[in-house]
Amino acid sequence: MSMEIIFLGTAGSVPTKTRNVSSIVVRYQGDYIFVDVGEGTQRQAMLSGVGLRKNMKIFITHMHGDHVLGLIPMLQTMCMLRRTEPLQIYGPRGIRRFITENMRMLNIRPTYPLVINYLSDGRVFDFGEYVVKVARNEHDRYSYALCIEEKPRPGRFDPEKAERDGIPKHLWRLLKQGRTVTLEDGRVVDYRRYVSPPLRGRKVVISGDTRPCRRIVSLARDADVLIHDATFASDRAERGVETGHSTAEEAAIVAREANVKVLILTHFSARYENVDRLVREARRIFPATFAAEDFMRVEVPPSRRPIRTW
Amino acid sequence: MSMEIIFLGTAGSVPTKTRNVSSIVVRYQGDYIFVDVGEGTQRQAMLSGVGLRKNMKIFITHMHGDHVLGLIPMLQTMCMLRRTEPLQIYGPRGIRRFITENMRMLNIRPTYPLVINYLSDGRVFDFGEYVVKVARNEHDRYSYALCIEEKPRPGRFDPEKAERDGIPKHLWRLLKQGRTVTLEDGRVVDYRRYVSPPLRGRKVVISGDTRPCRRIVSLARDADVLIHDATFASDRAERGVETGHSTAEEAAIVAREANVKVLILTHFSARYENVDRLVREARRIFPATFAAEDFMRVEVPPSRRPIRTW
Repeated sequence: MSMEIIFLGTAGSVPTKTRNVSSIVVRYQGDYIFVDVGEGTQRQAMLSGVGLRKNMKIFITHMHGDHVLGLIPMLQTMCMLRRTEPLQIYGPRGIRRFITENMRMLNIRPTYPLVINYLSDGRVFDFGEYVVKVARNEHDRYSYALCIEEKPRPGRFDPEKAERDGIPKHLWRLLKQGRTVTLEDGRVVDYRRYVSPPLRGRKVVISGDTRPCRRIVSLARDADVLIHDATFASDRAERGVETGHSTAEEAAIVAREANVKVLILTHFSARYENVDRLVREARRIFPATFAAEDFMRVEVPPSRRPIRTW
Repeated sequence: MSMEIIFLGTAGSVPTKTRNVSSIVVRYQGDYIFVDVGEGTQRQAMLSGVGLRKNMKIFITHMHGDHVLGLIPMLQTMCMLRRTEPLQIYGPRGIRRFITENMRMLNIRPTYPLVINYLSDGRVFDFGEYVVKVARNEHDRYSYALCIEEKPRPGRFDPEKAERDGIPKHLWRLLKQGRTVTLEDGRVVDYRRYVSPPLRGRKVVISGDTRPCRRIVSLARDADVLIHDATFASDRAERGVETGHSTAEEAAIVAREANVKVLILTHFSARYENVDRLVREARRIFPATFAAEDFMRVEVPPSRRPIRTW
């Protein structure tokens, strides 16, 4: 299973010549999870090669224009393309009304069922091989951080060892499933002798627009990648407090506290044509820091770390 | 006075990698008239160098998503930039509600007065040196074509001739203003001896999304530039009828009937990666046809043609 992050928009509030407003896609194998859909996202998706997919889901972290104003045009385009598959949308309070009112005012008749799911603190959406966990962040009353987390992957079965020990082949399947089996000769076989411990699933956390906060530290505990609001450099920390955003340094503190592997900064204020300074400031606190760019793709490799030992 | 057309989006309905959805700017000296604001227009304006201007006006030809979904993000950005000057918006029925509902749902508090003006067939907006005339087109119930027309420019005063004839200098101003003056010696001087006839103003007509129609032929009579819907090539003429759009050929017929100088095709269906065929089809009927491209700029030179003779 491959997992990849594609940044479609990395500007805060207002687009610039080089950065569009917020949108991130997390691809898990054939599933495309769009997190926020700022104005122009459908075209960014097109330019990036991601496009609009049958099996895409859309999450909206909060109802601010720069995170949601690309949604109606995207839904409209799917009507033009005559989509018929249901589309799952996950958003905060107000999302349904925003969609239905705009569709009514613009006379858009959906060609496919729209399924609206509401985000709330602590909610977990199960998508089979992975889950999306929701936590309130600190920005607006209904504003959320998201954790996209792969379920633990089964450990590796050792067929040579099983053969050597004379375990009949028709029992291998049960061992792989984690069952203890009894052979015809009465021997009791613990699967853990032939299957290595399960491996940790991959974990990507997206802070949304937020002040640094405890709930994100918990949500991002040991994550592979934390993508965090870094609207300002340290000299504008006050503006961060006023507007409910973070500085790059504050993002780095969250990353360090949560013990993540990699921190990616995003949602840069238009005032920073060059964000090197923000990266430098964050790296003094958390060295594995990078700046998101539009169209940047980050592969998240499968973990080899066992979830426990036996 | 310089007059220029800047194309910010030339795709019909759905953006493509090379074309954004509808928006055209007509610049008259320092005035920026935005005609339609599809999704992503603010960024196209930024990339084109047009940007967002204090003295911009926004016209919306009809309330379809691909012509209006860039409006709220643009208005929001002007709030972020702390605009205080009133912004004039000209649109069809439904425009006010679309703006106020979205601002309410997204909690956008305007920092400047928004002045909404309604389009209707035959209405003329006077902006001093030019006017914008409105005509219903054939697309949707409330859908309009626009004519941006410079008022006639005064003819040229001939100072050498006035000097030769001994007209005192303090009277020149009156002659330039088109007044007949009486000299101290009793001579009556007709200004037309010293001032050439007024010159035709420039005229740019934008069809909006439309079937070819008589009202646009009248509106575009002798225009310098007609920008016309050319969604389809001739083999999809039926789709044009079904969807209320035109083929390139139909646009050419309107241009020929209206006796315009130049026809510019736009609003191309995403099916045409290359629009050469549409231009070829139109040129068989109206040779001075060109295809719009995103970021294309067209200077409209001042007319030297007198409006009448004396």
